[in-house]
Amino acid sequence: MRAEQLPQVLAFDVFGTVVDWHGSIAREVNALGLDVSGSDFALAWRDGYMPAMARVRSGELGWTRIDDLHRMILDTLLQKFDIRGLDEAVIANLNRAWHRLDPWPDAVAGLARLRQRFTVCTLSNGNLGLLADLSKHAGLDWDLILSAETFHHYKPDPETYLGVCDVFEVAPSQMMLVAAHKNDLRAAMACGCHGAFIERPLECGPRSRDDLQREPDIAFHATNLNDLADQLGCPA
Amino acid sequence: MRAEQLPQVLAFDVFGTVVDWHGSIAREVNALGLDVSGSDFALAWRDGYMPAMARVRSGELGWTRIDDLHRMILDTLLQKFDIRGLDEAVIANLNRAWHRLDPWPDAVAGLARLRQRFTVCTLSNGNLGLLADLSKHAGLDWDLILSAETFHHYKPDPETYLGVCDVFEVAPSQMMLVAAHKNDLRAAMACGCHGAFIERPLECGPRSRDDLQREPDIAFHATNLNDLADQLGCPA
Repeated sequence: MRAEQLPQVLAFDVFGTVVDWHGSIAREVNALGLDVSGSDFALAWRDGYMPAMARVRSGELGWTRIDDLHRMILDTLLQKFDIRGLDEAVIANLNRAWHRLDPWPDAVAGLARLRQRFTVCTLSNGNLGLLADLSKHAGLDWDLILSAETFHHYKPDPETYLGVCDVFEVAPSQMMLVAAHKNDLRAAMACGCHGAFIERPLECGPRSRDDLQREPDIAFHATNLNDLADQLGCPA
Repeated sequence: MRAEQLPQVLAFDVFGTVVDWHGSIAREVNALGLDVSGSDFALAWRDGYMPAMARVRSGELGWTRIDDLHRMILDTLLQKFDIRGLDEAVIANLNRAWHRLDPWPDAVAGLARLRQRFTVCTLSNGNLGLLADLSKHAGLDWDLILSAETFHHYKPDPETYLGVCDVFEVAPSQMMLVAAHKNDLRAAMACGCHGAFIERPLECGPRSRDDLQREPDIAFHATNLNDLADQLGCPA
């Protein structure tokens, strides 16, 4: 892609692409001192995520925030992992661990570089309050926080990608989604947006088996956000 | 108000409270070299603002962004001020002057101080894209940009103030609106939120006659955002 064709707006997936949900959730679970693997618990929690959103996307559930979906999943996991006797305040606080995810080491600096040249926003399925808390916790600065909650549609519904374009009044060709997930990128590309894939080999912990292959149809492939900033010509 | 009763969330009106719309718009109009007073033009533009939003609030118009309302008003003003022959690109760029408003001198530092202690967001009738551009231009950092566009209601509709509380999942008593306009504050207070009045004696230019009186029912009264940060116990 030539410099004059670069999009104006970069919209970032957040969970896994910018922040390390697995490591952060596993650490908070381990800190509770329960007889469970924090990693297993984090993976099981995340496994409930797509099916829970699918219930909203299909219309079975009305609009429901991720905070509430996370809590519904958490309540089933406490049963499944046979964890008993936690106070409601402890459970509620554990649910808010998703508001305290740590950034990948390159994220803060990479985003700052990209913001010098592009309009940089989130496009996350996380709710607005979660994203605000998480960004403050992690030191992530955005030009705008956009969420599935803004559009009352979860990714990969086209209303989310096209909603970003509408907010900034740009054509889809002027928007690029940045994500560690190819299904997310391809849904954006089906709307006419561009895609940039970020390798996050540890997204699901040390046993991750994510597909990190380069793909000819995805415009950019970067090892992290600093690499993306390099490829997009942003000053260091 | 005692320290333990202070609200968690500060929601800021933007036009007039944080940024100087009059001075910024007047300067851009004057820079066009037309035979009109930039100040008069800015005041006339702003005069069209409440009636235009009233048409949306009443349901006469469907949801319409401020960018589009500003353009409707601008088109009538070009006729009223007998300004002819401007290119469409010049008119469109003038309309986007509202994306380039300068902050009041205390705004950047005052907000940074307040963010150390509170969740600090916007609650503006400006649309999301406008607020993102303006914040980047002015160097204003927020925890979250919220807009009438988020809620599809213009202030002073209660859905806006209560919408902020809902996003952060706090009771109205945990939210304080910060504004230079008493009607905005009193609408928030009618929802159970608190209010902080900021004096902006030059909001409408050197001939402003704004009501800057202290009011016993409004919790805080400050001369600027640094003064508010002092009163709320934020470190310098």
